Amino acid sequence: MSLNTFGHLFRVTTWGESHGPALGATVDGCPPGVPIDENMIQHWLDRRKPGQNKYTTQRREPDQVKILSGTFDGQTTGTPVQLMIENTDQRSKDYSEIAEKFRPGHADITYWQKYGIRDYRGGGRSSARETAARVAAGGLAREAIKALVPNVEIKGDMTRMGAHEIDRANFDWDQIDQNPFWTPDATAAETWADYLDGLRKSGSSVGAIIEVVARGVPAGLGAPIYGMLDTDLAAALIDIIAAARSVSSLA
Amino acid sequence: MSLNTFGHLFRVTTWGESHGPALGATVDGCPPGVPIDENMIQHWLDRRKPGQNKYTTQRREPDQVKILSGTFDGQTTGTPVQLMIENTDQRSKDYSEIAEKFRPGHADITYWQKYGIRDYRGGGRSSARETAARVAAGGLAREAIKALVPNVEIKGDMTRMGAHEIDRANFDWDQIDQNPFWTPDATAAETWADYLDGLRKSGSSVGAIIEVVARGVPAGLGAPIYGMLDTDLAAALIDIIAAARSVSSLA
Amino acid sequence: MSLNTFGHLFRVTTWGESHGPALGATVDGCPPGVPIDENMIQHWLDRRKPGQNKYTTQRREPDQVKILSGTFDGQTTGTPVQLMIENTDQRSKDYSEIAEKFRPGHADITYWQKYGIRDYRGGGRSSARETAARVAAGGLAREAIKALVPNVEIKGDMTRMGAHEIDRANFDWDQIDQNPFWTPDATAAETWADYLDGLRKSGSSVGAIIEVVARGVPAGLGAPIYGMLDTDLAAALIDIIAAARSVSSLA
Amino acid sequence: MSLNTFGHLFRVTTWGESHGPALGATVDGCPPGVPIDENMIQHWLDRRKPGQNKYTTQRREPDQVKILSGTFDGQTTGTPVQLMIENTDQRSKDYSEIAEKFRPGHADITYWQKYGIRDYRGGGRSSARETAARVAAGGLAREAIKALVPNVEIKGDMTRMGAHEIDRANFDWDQIDQNPFWTPDATAAETWADYLDGLRKSGSSVGAIIEVVARGVPAGLGAPIYGMLDTDLAAALIDIIAAARSVSSLA
Repeated sequence: MSLNTFGHLFRVTTWGESHGPALGATVDGCPPGVPIDENMIQHWLDRRKPGQNKYTTQRREPDQVKILSGTFDGQTTGTPVQLMIENTDQRSKDYSEIAEKFRPGHADITYWQKYGIRDYRGGGRSSARETAARVAAGGLAREAIKALVPNVEIKGDMTRMGAHEIDRANFDWDQIDQNPFWTPDATAAETWADYLDGLRKSGSSVGAIIEVVARGVPAGLGAPIYGMLDTDLAAALIDIIAAARSVSSLA
Repeated sequence: MSLNTFGHLFRVTTWGESHGPALGATVDGCPPGVPIDENMIQHWLDRRKPGQNKYTTQRREPDQVKILSGTFDGQTTGTPVQLMIENTDQRSKDYSEIAEKFRPGHADITYWQKYGIRDYRGGGRSSARETAARVAAGGLAREAIKALVPNVEIKGDMTRMGAHEIDRANFDWDQIDQNPFWTPDATAAETWADYLDGLRKSGSSVGAIIEVVARGVPAGLGAPIYGMLDTDLAAALIDIIAAARSVSSLA
Repeated sequence: MSLNTFGHLFRVTTWGESHGPALGATVDGCPPGVPIDENMIQHWLDRRKPGQNKYTTQRREPDQVKILSGTFDGQTTGTPVQLMIENTDQRSKDYSEIAEKFRPGHADITYWQKYGIRDYRGGGRSSARETAARVAAGGLAREAIKALVPNVEIKGDMTRMGAHEIDRANFDWDQIDQNPFWTPDATAAETWADYLDGLRKSGSSVGAIIEVVARGVPAGLGAPIYGMLDTDLAAALIDIIAAARSVSSLA
Repeated sequence: MSLNTFGHLFRVTTWGESHGPALGATVDGCPPGVPIDENMIQHWLDRRKPGQNKYTTQRREPDQVKILSGTFDGQTTGTPVQLMIENTDQRSKDYSEIAEKFRPGHADITYWQKYGIRDYRGGGRSSARETAARVAAGGLAREAIKALVPNVEIKGDMTRMGAHEIDRANFDWDQIDQNPFWTPDATAAETWADYLDGLRKSGSSVGAIIEVVARGVPAGLGAPIYGMLDTDLAAALIDIIAAARSVSSLA
């Protein structure tokens, strides 16, 4: 049963709701001897953190990660690593009106029918906030991969917003940290900013395409079928509850 | 570890290669009291069976399923159901030339690098023949669903071949068994037949789109994230090793 | 892979070391609608808590549990329940001498050989302190069982210390909370106290036998083999790392 | 859910009933390159086979194993290995009287209450015959261990029957194949034969103790808790459904 768990040997179980005291990830199966500290994980959470520019949700969360277990002297020990992020901006009152309403596109009705109880303060597990726990676990996974297979390089970027695609001739990895869209095409970043400003004023939103590039990956990862690398990636992407909303929330 | 297993409560582990003595599916967690016999499963295998028309692979396999365990007096007992299909058309000699070659698009090199050994007689687990085991297990799953939730209806059809889409105005479920493409649009079936004949003569192939429609599905199936219904469906589809080849093999 | 997980539908993953910031249990699969608050779990942790009488380890820990997720308005919601216990009595300096020594009976050497790194401050996952996380999860499990099958009653008691067995004629469940040994035989409690005082003075220790009684359990729990109730209970008991030490630590 | 599965990386799912067409084991996760053929597995099944002497059940089964998948050219390929044993001595008529009776000690009532259906022809999954599938999978496991860790040696013997223990001074591994009890003490074998003859004539039976010795096992197998080697062994032993009957069936 993988209700809230992802992975085979390196298993990530995320837990927590957007309006509870905390959320996080229990990582079981992390190899020992991986150099890790909170700053290395915080680096990725800071990049995910909302409220950094006008295009993202304005919820303010410091999203400070704490490592509660599984490390000693700056290294993993092979025991479960507990990564916790406390919720500080719970703003329950802002959501009071929602208690008696089912919001469209948030699985509220399904949740109610399945469980017979609903935390009306927010999206609960269906909130995009759940991805903070994944980002934390992903930060640890990156270091684990680095320790095991030094030359693997994994990078992500955004290649399209609505009908506007990047021009691959302008592709420059160094650009992805220079604009709010993590796009490698500096020209596209400008076009998209104007485009998104227009959409925001009209109260609309738009989809986008991101790509992830992994280099130096050893041959034969995953199983021939069922546990294929492709399968796991597809499942992990679909699992992102707000996948279809990820860019609409920018608008 | 789900190397060769799909599912949570109803768990299907497929086994077997295209050139071994047999292949099949071990189904664990099937509810008791599901009416089942070999004919009910054979019905679906017969629809999948290759060699039925000029558009499919010409390998001739009767694909007779045997139920080796888990049933008594025409009902499941709650114990593991073993579904076995013996390979009869092994034709090893036909593949002799392949022993010293890596075929493109068959994961031969990856398999070799991962395992250090390769069954050069055929695709092994990477063969589309593995789907016969899924069809058998799916036949049992259909009956289990019927026993548990009587009104669920699940149907599939083909809606597009290459650039040719069906006309939804012609949609008729009764048509899907009347043509070799399981398309609900009788007119499309004719167009596609000509189109595919042309492609075959030119030695080419083409992709297609199928759709699956499920009606009467209870609300709340699956988990809110990770074990989502969407996740499992996406994984199951990606898992079909020959997904990208399924229609090209028609040509 | 069940490295740190116990259970099938109600799955408990314990995490944390005796000398890290916290330890706890991630419970996935808890049914929704189970009435729960921290006090209901604290009740059981208080009974486990060391330092309550002269017979137990003198480490002082308040062992306050916090529910970080999975509940709303005093009920479980069906999402993962995170139970955290912060370590307050870390006393790292007390263990400084151990850094260069492998303690007998603590799996120190095995751990070192397996992982190549060792948290020398204490037993880590091999510490009996890990059972605090189980007790917390068990407290939740009790309420989940109560919500699902109201008449189940589960009690435990100690029936033997060294060669001294209880007299079943004196058996009185009401006694188990009246003595430091949770024995239902008031006379045995007195004998054992003297016996254990003598052992403590001589620097020795002794084994004991506990029994757990469950009444009102529905027929057919567990699977016919492999996932048998017996199997799971046996595994859970063996899993208690300090099983062989549980009473020796009293002495 | 491990309803019928044992193991973590090397996973064994047994299937089949004593009165169906066949039983067997689906082994997923077996490493590639393990030299194996049917004779190597048959060796162990022949040692388990009933009807070899007057002390065992008189059911006659050749218990011939067939390898249906997962091997090529005498080696495992890394894909699932299907081991099948066909039932030949089904003797359904012998059991006809049982159809309307619940046998004591065979979990018949529990099975009936749990599943609502019962294969009255025999013990089904609760039959000691299920262990044939384990022996087959164990034969493969032995070869896999040998291929991975050449110096591991695993042997079993019987050390006690009823009140009669072996004399360790007589211990000789070479004796275990020379008597029907696999005891290393030739003198004990004689005593036990007389003792068991007496028990059989009086219609009674008796328990026994076996021991398994593994030498050359690498340090650190298993996890510190939950997935401990001890846990898995305990679970596997308890899982043998007829554990308490294994010697009574000798009498």
